Order: sequence, then C-alpha cells, then structure tokens
Amino acid sequence: MTDKKPFAWETAIAWKNKDRIVVRGYDVNELTGNISFAEHFHLVLRGELPTPEVGRMTEAILVNMAEHAMSPSSATVRFATSGGAELNAAVAAGVAGIGRLHGTADRPAEMFLAVGERAERDGLSDREAAAKVVAEMRERRERMPGFHHAQHIRDPRTARLLELSDELGVTGRYVGIARAMEDATEDVFGRRIWINGPGSMGCVGLDMGYEPLQLKAMFIVCRSLSLCAHSIEEATREKGWRASTNSDMVQPLDLSMQGPDHYDGPADRSLT
Amino acid sequence: MTDKKPFAWETAIAWKNKDRIVVRGYDVNELTGNISFAEHFHLVLRGELPTPEVGRMTEAILVNMAEHAMSPSSATVRFATSGGAELNAAVAAGVAGIGRLHGTADRPAEMFLAVGERAERDGLSDREAAAKVVAEMRERRERMPGFHHAQHIRDPRTARLLELSDELGVTGRYVGIARAMEDATEDVFGRRIWINGPGSMGCVGLDMGYEPLQLKAMFIVCRSLSLCAHSIEEATREKGWRASTNSDMVQPLDLSMQGPDHYDGPADRSLT
Amino acid sequence: MTDKKPFAWETAIAWKNKDRIVVRGYDVNELTGNISFAEHFHLVLRGELPTPEVGRMTEAILVNMAEHAMSPSSATVRFATSGGAELNAAVAAGVAGIGRLHGTADRPAEMFLAVGERAERDGLSDREAAAKVVAEMRERRERMPGFHHAQHIRDPRTARLLELSDELGVTGRYVGIARAMEDATEDVFGRRIWINGPGSMGCVGLDMGYEPLQLKAMFIVCRSLSLCAHSIEEATREKGWRASTNSDMVQPLDLSMQGPDHYDGPADRSLT
Amino acid sequence: MTDKKPFAWETAIAWKNKDRIVVRGYDVNELTGNISFAEHFHLVLRGELPTPEVGRMTEAILVNMAEHAMSPSSATVRFATSGGAELNAAVAAGVAGIGRLHGTADRPAEMFLAVGERAERDGLSDREAAAKVVAEMRERRERMPGFHHAQHIRDPRTARLLELSDELGVTGRYVGIARAMEDATEDVFGRRIWINGPGSMGCVGLDMGYEPLQLKAMFIVCRSLSLCAHSIEEATREKGWRASTNSDMVQPLDLSMQGPDHYDGPADRSLT
Repeated sequence: MTDKKPFAWETAIAWKNKDRIVVRGYDVNELTGNISFAEHFHLVLRGELPTPEVGRMTEAILVNMAEHAMSPSSATVRFATSGGAELNAAVAAGVAGIGRLHGTADRPAEMFLAVGERAERDGLSDREAAAKVVAEMRERRERMPGFHHAQHIRDPRTARLLELSDELGVTGRYVGIARAMEDATEDVFGRRIWINGPGSMGCVGLDMGYEPLQLKAMFIVCRSLSLCAHSIEEATREKGWRASTNSDMVQPLDLSMQGPDHYDGPADRSLT
Repeated sequence: MTDKKPFAWETAIAWKNKDRIVVRGYDVNELTGNISFAEHFHLVLRGELPTPEVGRMTEAILVNMAEHAMSPSSATVRFATSGGAELNAAVAAGVAGIGRLHGTADRPAEMFLAVGERAERDGLSDREAAAKVVAEMRERRERMPGFHHAQHIRDPRTARLLELSDELGVTGRYVGIARAMEDATEDVFGRRIWINGPGSMGCVGLDMGYEPLQLKAMFIVCRSLSLCAHSIEEATREKGWRASTNSDMVQPLDLSMQGPDHYDGPADRSLT
Repeated sequence: MTDKKPFAWETAIAWKNKDRIVVRGYDVNELTGNISFAEHFHLVLRGELPTPEVGRMTEAILVNMAEHAMSPSSATVRFATSGGAELNAAVAAGVAGIGRLHGTADRPAEMFLAVGERAERDGLSDREAAAKVVAEMRERRERMPGFHHAQHIRDPRTARLLELSDELGVTGRYVGIARAMEDATEDVFGRRIWINGPGSMGCVGLDMGYEPLQLKAMFIVCRSLSLCAHSIEEATREKGWRASTNSDMVQPLDLSMQGPDHYDGPADRSLT
Repeated sequence: MTDKKPFAWETAIAWKNKDRIVVRGYDVNELTGNISFAEHFHLVLRGELPTPEVGRMTEAILVNMAEHAMSPSSATVRFATSGGAELNAAVAAGVAGIGRLHGTADRPAEMFLAVGERAERDGLSDREAAAKVVAEMRERRERMPGFHHAQHIRDPRTARLLELSDELGVTGRYVGIARAMEDATEDVFGRRIWINGPGSMGCVGLDMGYEPLQLKAMFIVCRSLSLCAHSIEEATREKGWRASTNSDMVQPLDLSMQGPDHYDGPADRSLT
C-alpha cells in the first residue's frame, strides 16, 4: 500500500461486505450455533480455533473471573450509574477502571515469561530462576503481580483454575514457574504468599498459548458482564447520586463531629 | 436498613468473603468448568441458570454479534489506541461509543414490547398492531430501530439468528411481531425493510425472557471481544497517531488543492 | 462533496496545516496570551468571541462549578484510579459518570426553553407559564431538573451565580423564568424548592446565548479539572484497590455479623 | 484514622456542607468572579493561587492547547458520537484516547527532570547533560517525547509558548534544558528536531512549578473543550454510524476492486 491513508484500515481480524461477515476466514453465520463463545474468543484474538482443551479452559476462566462482587471496577460502574450514565457510558467507566492494579493477568504473565528467559540466559532450572527472581524482587521491594489478594489472602479461584488446568492437560512450563515462585515465597518472606486469580490466569494462560495482553483482554471481556449487571442493578434499585457517606464533610478544626470522611487541606482563608 | 449510607452496597448479584465468591447463590468455583459463559451470562444478569435452549441461543448471539469488522466502536478503539491509550482505556472508549445508534438491541425490544401492549390495549391481533405501528412511525418520520442496516441493507446475521431461534423452539410472540413488522414495511414503504442484527437480538431476546437493557448488555459483552482485538492489532501493526486523511486541512479559499477533509468555518480573521 | 467518505471530516471548528492552527478563523497563536480560557470556550463552541460580560460570566461559572468535593464523578474517578487506571483512563471514567443526573445544566435549560415556548403558544406571561408547568410536573410526579440539591437543599452556588448575572447585566428572560418557577414551588409544594447550581447555569447560560448542550459541555470542561485533581490525589495518597467497606460481605443467613454492605440474593445452592 | 474504611474519603482538595463549598480553604463563592479559570486550575491542582505570571502563562497554555483540529482524541470522539453516544460518553471516549502518545506533556517533563538530575549526578552543565542524553537516546533508538510533530515537523505552538514564557519571566532551568536538547539534535541527528507543543508545555510547565502529571491534567482539561465541540458538531452535522471508507472491505483474493481498506487475514475457510 504505497499511499497509506490515516483512515485506511488494515486488519487480519475480519472483513464484511453487503452479504457476509467473515471472521478470521470463517463466515460468522457458520460459527454461530456451532462454536462456543470461549472458542470464538480464541479465534478472534489468536486467529485460530483452539484445541478442545484450550477451549474448555478458556470457558472456565471466563466464568471464573466474570464476577467478584465489589471490586474497583464494579464500584466505578455504580458511581457512574448513580450520576445518570447510560449503560454504555457506565460500563465504559468500569472498563477504564480495570487498570494495572486490577484484573492484571498480563503483568504476572510478563513476569513468568521473564523468569523463563532468565533460566535460559543464566543456565538455571526454572525452579532456581523462580527462587532468584522472588528474592530479587523482595530486595527491590517490588510487588509480585499475580500474588496475594488483599480481600482473600489465599484467593479461592486459584485452586479451582489450577486443578482444571491439570485435569485438562493444559498445565505446562508457566504453571510450573508460578508454583515454584509460590514455593519460594516461604523462604523469602517467611510465609507463603499465594498465587491469586489473575496470577493463575497469567500462568495457565501462557500454557494455553495466549500472549499477556490477550489475557488482559480475557479479563476485560468476562468482567464486562459483571459491570453490566452492577450498572443495571444500581439503576433499578437505587435512587441516583451516590457521593459520600456524609454530605457534611469534616472541617479541619472540628474533627470530632463527623463520620469517616476527612478533609485535611488548608483551613478557611480569604482572597483578601 | 434504617441508616443507609451512600457507600453501602446492596446487591443480589454476588457476595464474597475471604474464602468464597458466590454468584446468585452458586459458588463460583462450582460453576467454573461446569457451565458455559453463555449460561453464566444468563445467571449473572437474570439471576437463574437458563434452560438448555436459551443457553444455546445466548451462546449463538454472543458469537454472532462479537465481531463486525469496522463499526463506530471498533473505529473508536483504533483512534484511542493510536493516541497511546492502554487496553483498558481504549476498550472503554469503544464501549462508550456503543450508544443509542449502535448495538441497539434494547430499542427494537422496547418497540416490540410496545406493539404487544398496543395489541392488547386496542384489541388487535399482533399482526394488526405491528402494521399500525409501522404505518404510524412512517407518518411521524420516526426511524424503526432494529430495521435496515446501511452497510448490509439485508443484514446477513438476521437469517441465521431467526433460523436458530426457530430450530431451538425459542421463537415466540416477539419474533412473530418483528416478522409482522417486516412484512408490513412492504405496504408502508413500497419495499421490504429488513430486520437487522440488533433487531433480531431484540425479538429473539424477548422470547428468551431477557429484558431490553439486558440485551444491550449482551451486545456490549460480546462486542468487547472485538474491541480488545482491534486495540491490540492497532497497537501492534500501526505506528500511532491516526488523525486525518491529510494533515493539511483545506483552507476556506483554497478548496481545490486538498483531499477529502474540509473546513467550512469563518475565513482568516484577526483579534485587532 | 459528492463523494462523501465516512472518514472525511467536515468541520467549522478549526483547521491546521504544517505551519498554522486556526480556530474559528483566528490563528491559535494570536489568541494565546490575548484571550482568557473562558473566552476561548465561547469561541470554540459558539464560533465567535463573547462580549466582555458573557466572557466574565463564563469564567465565573467555570470557576464555580469546577470542584464540588465528593460527587458521583469524583467518586467514580477515585475507584477507577484505585484499580490502577492512568490519568486519562480515570478522568474518562469520571466524565462518563457525568450523566443525566449530574451536572445536568442542559436539562433545566431545555425546561426553561419549554416554559418560554409555552408562554408564547398559550398567550401567557412567563410567570403564568412557569406556574402552570411547575403544577403540571408535580401532577405527573416528574422531577424538575435544576431544582433541589440533596446535599445542600438550598445550593449555595445559586445565589452567587445569579448575583453576578444581575451585576453583569446578563440576566434576561430565562433567569426570570427560573425565578418564577422557584416562586411557584411554594404554592405547589407548600415549601420553596430552590434552583440548584446546574439550574442556575441553565438559566443564566441561556441568557448568555448558549444552547443547552453547550452548557453540559461547560460543566464537563470545568469539572474535568476536579476529576484530574481527585485522580492524582487518590494515586498519591492511597494504596490502590478500594472496593467495599468490608471484604466479608453479608451472607444471607447471617445478617447480624456485618458492616453496612448487604447481599440479598438467593441463599447458597448447588448445580446438582 | 485507625479504622480506615475503603469508602472514607481523605482529601486536601475541598470540603462541603449544606451551606458551603470550600476549595483549598477558599469559599468557592468568593473565588467565583474574582479569579480566572487558569488561576483556579493552579489552586485546585497545586493547592495555592499562582503568581500573576504563572496564572497568565497557565491561561496561555490552556488556550493554545485546547483545539488542534483532527487528532486521535477528536477522531475518537467523532466515531463514538456517530454510534449515538451522549456527550458525556463521547467526551469520555476522547479523554481515554489521550494516552501516552497524545498530549503527552508529562513524559517530556519527566525527561527534562532526568536531564537535570543527570547534570547534578555527573557534575555536568545542563547543556552537557542535555547533549549526552540526546546522544544516548539516539543510540538506544528511543523516541524523545516532546520533540517532533508528524503533522507540523516544526510545531507552530512552540515558538509562541516559549516567547510568552520569556516575556513573563517564567523561563528557567527546564526551558533551558529543552532548548539545549533541541540544539543537540543537530549534531546527533544531522538535522534539527524541534520541540513540539506538549514538549514546550513540559519545560515551561516545570519552570512554572507544576509536576509532570499536573501538566498532563492541563492538557486533558483544555482539550476536553475541543472534544465537546467535535462531539456536538458531529451530532449536529452528520447522520451517525461512521465506520469505514467502504462498507465492502477487500476480500483476500480480490485486492483490485476496492478502496483503501484492506483485509489480510486468512482466506475463506470452513469449520468442516
């Protein structure tokens, strides 16, 4: 394309004309009714249909991660909805809130990949590399993405996802690396720090052949279901305009009289 | 709850504690690996697991509507990504773009419900009410949501979705009303105006027991898959900063020299 | 443009080429340092520079409405930021939350315009039309947009904005209509229901020559300042991952043990 | 606060009660009509009113950067609006698109700060450190944020902003560092690579006392004005549903027949 225009789309995902919509080479009407949404997820993002095992594991993760009661994104959606946002706007707000600290399967995946590369570069076993990386992150006071969950400590989703991954024969090198890192935390921190839900997505996802950002996409897609549900419930059950626990926020000099909210900026002053 | 606080969540969707995440009464780990994402969609939004037929039909719609090549939301995602937006921000932009003219299964569903109510109120058959409503909307020059698709004229998705709905025994009153409205367009407009994809979601969705806004949610959830794919592809294949087909926009007095972009505001002027 | 392309921009707002950026006919570099941002707001949205009075009143509103401590949009921004959203994503979430119940200067403006049209159509004085409309909305149990503020009852911003509008000679027909509606509430509701901040933006804004949606834009633009401040403060002061007041949400059968959050969906059940 | 709750707001920005809204210690009604929006920008984000010079320079930047015709964010807004997004949703989409490659005043600011630190650490003059950093970035094939603009090559906004900064006496160390880096590009690249608009915001902004992320906020706030204008114009002038330059996208085997859009994924295939 010699004369490329900013508005020319070049894509390998899909094309359409008046009569057909074709996704990665398949007519969408042939896919419809014949593959699962999880298989379609793999097709759209990775370009090929998955093996049956990877399809089932994808489905399991989409179900497991869709809903988590109150989290930053569901709270975001509820406040946006309380301001009168339509469903699309409210869900957009929630998706925007799925930042680097939330649903962060891509970051543990990047870390697991780095452990693997480290093993190769330094001629270590994966277990040795895992232990080294955990110790070094501790030393640099870096948080290990994909480990620990403040609300659960030991995230209940991990056991189920790893069990299924083992059962389906999906488990490979990266689940091994994640487990080795978890083991290494005992020595390094003096207590076990558990793989959390997104962390298990990260290692199982790599063993399924997904790239890190495709795992973030997996989280966004399934969690958008939760965001829709919370927005609709908020719009239906509540009266609008959530804001703070008390409308009278604390004045600096009168801290005793108030609820949990707290202002600690400058005291009253005047332009003159 | 006598002392309701703005930050107290009241929800019937899910709860969690340190050890469990429970969705609509089911432990999420029991659901994982045992139900499809489509069934989970129904559970989270409607509170109960679907019948097998409704589960299969939900899955079919989620696959059918996930990807449509270039549409307003995929273009939105691509421009946002070209500005350097992270995946969550770019997908949020795209979801925000799924407004009342895009993926609008809720609006045809509302219209089909209104036709049904009209039939009851006026003692008409559904076919009679459908014909009346089409004629009246024409007279008021109101667009019929869920009918006609500028890119397809006859949207190819409709035939597949209605065929599956018939096969699965999902088809009921609202598919009938939609078909009656389509039939009525021939008389009213002098040519057939076809049910489009979101329109078929609207009528089949009502026959599946979904409420209109839950159908909008269904579109948002499956289309978010497409939005992720377009964002990742844009970030991978393109160089950033899409803007206009030509950086030199047309000056008012020199319309001849330019590409498709066009400025038609005031000519050059000065503050002095 | 006979062969209009979906990606051809037609705009009267601005053009640029390699050497210049021109907004509504003025070179942006000439505007820079010579007009206020408030005047620029008027120029960009309305196409012409404002009178000095309208410029000063625009500036006053932009200052008055920029910050309101905790509101739905600032809370939205804080939750999105707590999920690790970058500044652009977090502010996007907050802007999405400025829906029809929040910063809603456009809706009172539409109502004031409708009162004016009603007066003309029915040969009433504006005061008579205002009283009629208030009574009719009450009867239909419709909320009057731009009146009442749950956190203030009598919104303190209104007095200042109307005072300035009077001083600057901006006050005209629509401030009169708003005041007449406020007066009418005493008869209709048995107590005075006060014009709130967005309501005063609505009537003063119309008297300044703005269209309703341009007033919504005015709110979005100035409130985006607050949204930036709350996002940056949240990212700086807090540790991330806000979610709920208690991580252990209430189980259905154990309502006594918990904080304010509350689950009232189905009790525990199983797939089998 | 010993028993900190996730929903307790702690803030130094503002507080309110039934009768007052107080921003950084000032009653918002006293500020209204008495300070400019630019001064308010400084107050809200930095906690104090600016000097007159910093206030004027802030105003100049807010005017200079508000509108840039077609850019990634204005295009994002237009596509979202074409999907029927309300103003808040469409502007949210545009703000989400102001990512790390767009309006990126924070990234050049970080780079200028790093040059300053480098000078101190290595006992170099700022000019020496600037030259070293430019050379090293070239060697690492790293792009210099804040330099070069694909649409302008030499961004016209830079000259105006630096001229004003000099006139107002704002210019200090960081404008010096930016100019030294620009000078150094001649040696390193064999041609001058010019400071662009966001780059000049970055260096002038640091000399005004802003932190990098506060400069990103400055861009977001003023550019939100443009986003509102483009959304309203799109909704008013266009018919909705922009998508691609041609609805019939290119099939893989028939590249000759089509417009600029291009599909290069797998050729037609079937599930069976």
